[in-house]
Amino acid sequence: MTIRAGLVGLGKIARDQHLPAIEKTAGIEVVAVASRNAQGEGVSNYPNLDAMLAGEPELDAVILCQPPQVRYQAARQAILAGKHVFLEKPPGATVSEVEALVALAKARNVTLYASWHSRYAAAVAQAKAWLASRTIERIDIQWREDVRHWHPGQPWIWEAGGFGVFDPGINALSILTEIVPEPVTLLSASLEVPQNKDAPIGAALKMATASGAPVEAVFDWRQTGPQTWDIAVETGNGRLLLSEGGNMLRLDGEVQVKAPDEEYPAMYRRFVQLTADKAIDADIAPLRLVADAFLCGRHCPTTAFED
Amino acid sequence: MTIRAGLVGLGKIARDQHLPAIEKTAGIEVVAVASRNAQGEGVSNYPNLDAMLAGEPELDAVILCQPPQVRYQAARQAILAGKHVFLEKPPGATVSEVEALVALAKARNVTLYASWHSRYAAAVAQAKAWLASRTIERIDIQWREDVRHWHPGQPWIWEAGGFGVFDPGINALSILTEIVPEPVTLLSASLEVPQNKDAPIGAALKMATASGAPVEAVFDWRQTGPQTWDIAVETGNGRLLLSEGGNMLRLDGEVQVKAPDEEYPAMYRRFVQLTADKAIDADIAPLRLVADAFLCGRHCPTTAFED
Repeated sequence: MTIRAGLVGLGKIARDQHLPAIEKTAGIEVVAVASRNAQGEGVSNYPNLDAMLAGEPELDAVILCQPPQVRYQAARQAILAGKHVFLEKPPGATVSEVEALVALAKARNVTLYASWHSRYAAAVAQAKAWLASRTIERIDIQWREDVRHWHPGQPWIWEAGGFGVFDPGINALSILTEIVPEPVTLLSASLEVPQNKDAPIGAALKMATASGAPVEAVFDWRQTGPQTWDIAVETGNGRLLLSEGGNMLRLDGEVQVKAPDEEYPAMYRRFVQLTADKAIDADIAPLRLVADAFLCGRHCPTTAFED
Repeated sequence: MTIRAGLVGLGKIARDQHLPAIEKTAGIEVVAVASRNAQGEGVSNYPNLDAMLAGEPELDAVILCQPPQVRYQAARQAILAGKHVFLEKPPGATVSEVEALVALAKARNVTLYASWHSRYAAAVAQAKAWLASRTIERIDIQWREDVRHWHPGQPWIWEAGGFGVFDPGINALSILTEIVPEPVTLLSASLEVPQNKDAPIGAALKMATASGAPVEAVFDWRQTGPQTWDIAVETGNGRLLLSEGGNMLRLDGEVQVKAPDEEYPAMYRRFVQLTADKAIDADIAPLRLVADAFLCGRHCPTTAFED
C-alpha cells in the first residue's frame, strides 16, 4: 500500500527537502498540496487544509510544513479527520499544544510524527551507540551561525514566540536528547535579546544529565565566516566530537563518519513505518528544554540588530 | 498500615499546612524531618535528605517542601531509594525535570504525587462537574494579590526562574486545567518585568480551549486592599464564578458553595490512597502553561519595584 499524502505549506523547506525526499521513498506519494500562494506540479491543489480535506477524502496522511504558529489547529483538524500527521520541527509553538496533539492522536489511533531532522544526520546513530556504554563526564555544545544567511526577510523569527536563536539551537537539543541515554534538565540560562527585537540572538544554557554531568550550550546567530554546529562529549573512556550538525563524527580525534546530509529521506522511511504500525513518535524533550530555557532564562538586553 | 513519612524543608508551608493536615489524616504519620535550620518536635531530626535516608531505612515516603529549585535532585534521590514522593507545588523548577521524575517513578514503581493545592479548594469539584455537560464560550481569570503581604523577604521569587507572579498564577492555572474538560493551550502572553527584577510582577495570557473558546488571564502582584482570585466561565447554558481561590462558587449569580479552605487534608487523603495503589498523579499541565507563557511571552519592562 502507498500512503496518499497531502502537503500543507509549499514553501522553501517543502520544495528543498520534503518533496525530493518523498520522491526517493517507497510507500508514500504526495497527491495534493494546500498552499495559499503556491501550486504543486502534477497534484491536486487547494488553497488551504479545509478545502484539501473536503476535496480528498481518500488521503491517508497530512504533512505540515507551515510555520509552527499555525500548526496546532491544522494538526488537530487532520487528526480529527482520521489522517496520519507528519510535523516539521519544531512540532508546535508551545509544549502544551504538542502534548494535546499526542493525546488526541492516541485517542484517534492515528500516527503522529514529530520530526527532528538533525537526529537523522549521518553520524548521530553511531554517536548514540558509542555513548550507550560509556560514562558521560561533560558535554559542550557550540551552535553558531549567521542569521542573515539562513533567515533573510523572516521578521517572525524575531517576534515573541518566534524562538530566535533557538530555531537552530533546538536542532542541537534534538541531537543531545537523542544521544544521551538519560534525561537532561535545564539549570539556568541567559538570553541575549537585541534591544529592537523580542527574541534572543544568543543564548547560554547550563544543563545536567540525570547523573549530574554538566552540559553547556552556546547558541549564537552572529557568526560570520565558517559556521559551527559542534557537540563535544567527554567520557570516562574517550572523547566524541559530532560536527557539521551531526554529519561528521570524530572519536578521540579520528574521523569515523563524514557523510552528506540525507536526513529527510530517512525521516520519510521512518514515517512510512510508523503509519503501518499506527504508532506515535513525538518526543517533546527538545521543545521542553527550549521552554525551560525561557522559563528560567535571564533576559540580557544587547545591541540592536538589523537584518 | 500507616505510611512512615519523612518531611524535607521545615519552613512556613510545612508548619502551617503539611504538619496539621497530616495530623488529621488516617494512614500517614511524620516520623522524621530533614531541615537545615529547624527541628521537628517528637520526630527524628536530620540536617538533610541524605542523612535522613541513611538514618531511617524504614521510611515509606518523603514529603518535599523545599523551594522548587532544589526539589529535583531530592525527589530523584528519594525515588532511587524506593520511597514514595509528595511534591509541593510547583512540582519542579522546569518541565523537563518533572517529566524525568514521572519516568523514574514509573520505572521504580513508586508513587509520585505532584500536589496542586488549589485543585482541592472547596468548590472546585462541583465547578468541574457543572462544566462537564456544558459548552464553554469563554473564560476570564483575575488573580490579583499583594506580593508584599504574601512574600515578604523572599528575594528568590524575583530571580530568573523564580516564577514571579506565576507563583500564585499557577494556582489559577491548576484550577483551570482541572475544571475544563479538554486541553488548554497558550496563544500569547505579555510579561511585565520591573526594571530592577528578573521575574514578572504582572502577566496577561491569551489561551484557548481545544474547541477554540477564548481563555484570558490577568495575574497581578500589585493589588492592595481586597485580594482577587476569580475564575469566570460563560457557557451556552449559564455562568459560573469561582472566587476566593476556588472556595466559593456562584452559578448564575447564586451562591452554591462557600466553605473554608481544607485543601491540604484532602491532598493527604489522596496521597495515602495513591501510595496504596503505587499510582502516579503528576499532572504537568499547569507548569507547562507557565513555561509556554515564558516561551511565547513578550517582556515589557515596567517601573522598578521595592519590596
